[in-house]
Amino acid sequence: MAREPLDRMNCSIAHALDVVGSIDGFLILRNAFNGMRTFDAFQDHLGLSSSVLSTRLKQMTEAGILRKTPSPTDGRSYEYRLTEQGLGLYPVMVALLHWGERWTPDPGGERMFLTETATGRPVAPMAVRSEDGRPLRPQEITAVAGPGADDKIRQLVGWRRRP
Amino acid sequence: MAREPLDRMNCSIAHALDVVGSIDGFLILRNAFNGMRTFDAFQDHLGLSSSVLSTRLKQMTEAGILRKTPSPTDGRSYEYRLTEQGLGLYPVMVALLHWGERWTPDPGGERMFLTETATGRPVAPMAVRSEDGRPLRPQEITAVAGPGADDKIRQLVGWRRRP
Repeated sequence: MAREPLDRMNCSIAHALDVVGSIDGFLILRNAFNGMRTFDAFQDHLGLSSSVLSTRLKQMTEAGILRKTPSPTDGRSYEYRLTEQGLGLYPVMVALLHWGERWTPDPGGERMFLTETATGRPVAPMAVRSEDGRPLRPQEITAVAGPGADDKIRQLVGWRRRP
Repeated sequence: MAREPLDRMNCSIAHALDVVGSIDGFLILRNAFNGMRTFDAFQDHLGLSSSVLSTRLKQMTEAGILRKTPSPTDGRSYEYRLTEQGLGLYPVMVALLHWGERWTPDPGGERMFLTETATGRPVAPMAVRSEDGRPLRPQEITAVAGPGADDKIRQLVGWRRRP
């Protein structure tokens, strides 16, 4: 038995996972959000094989979260830059970062933190928040199936209320 | 060349990815956040093979994000429930959900949305926010290496400022 492909699932989370594609995809995104753009730099820093890295970059480019453009300094080489869709994954990455700092702290102290450039103040902890900005726990939230949900999503959303 | 194991990287994002383990791990979490708890229910709904699912559940349990407990209704079977650490991944899941609704919308309308149970109001869009709650774009944020960072993380954080 094989799982249904992510892009066939009628699920927003599955579609977001599909564009990232794999755990390595998340690491590539992490580096791209820090300004890394070239194949060689990704390879040196991540230690991925050429074939894994090129497959991953190609899929992320085709999925529309990276854009491949000629290098401004060397016309024979290319850069991979985040698109608007790719930049939209920033909350996912920061939520992973804050989780890791909270639950797998380094004995030496914080590894990396984020500040608002204009003020120098740390960003707020990532949280699911109410309309007026209060952090909410999962237990305080209800999932609702919308008009675009298929039976499988309705089944999932209704799981707690099943007979 | 093989990538360094995630748990050896001095990186909070890598550690968070390590506990989830794979794309399938994210789907299991999605279902667990909707109240799903049993091996059979995960298998029916996700269509994973028994061996993939049991490996994944075992790793997520060992990583501390799921807890395996005897079923309250059938002492011979088990349930997998989110721990506090597992519940802490909720912002990651909701950020994936909001990304998918925004960038891969269903023609029929929203697939799933989340409301604050107490008020019935939709939760706020996931965003990285300033201390006082303003949504910030990645371009408005500076990453800073903390005292727990190793050379590889310092290199990454300083990427935009390299010579």
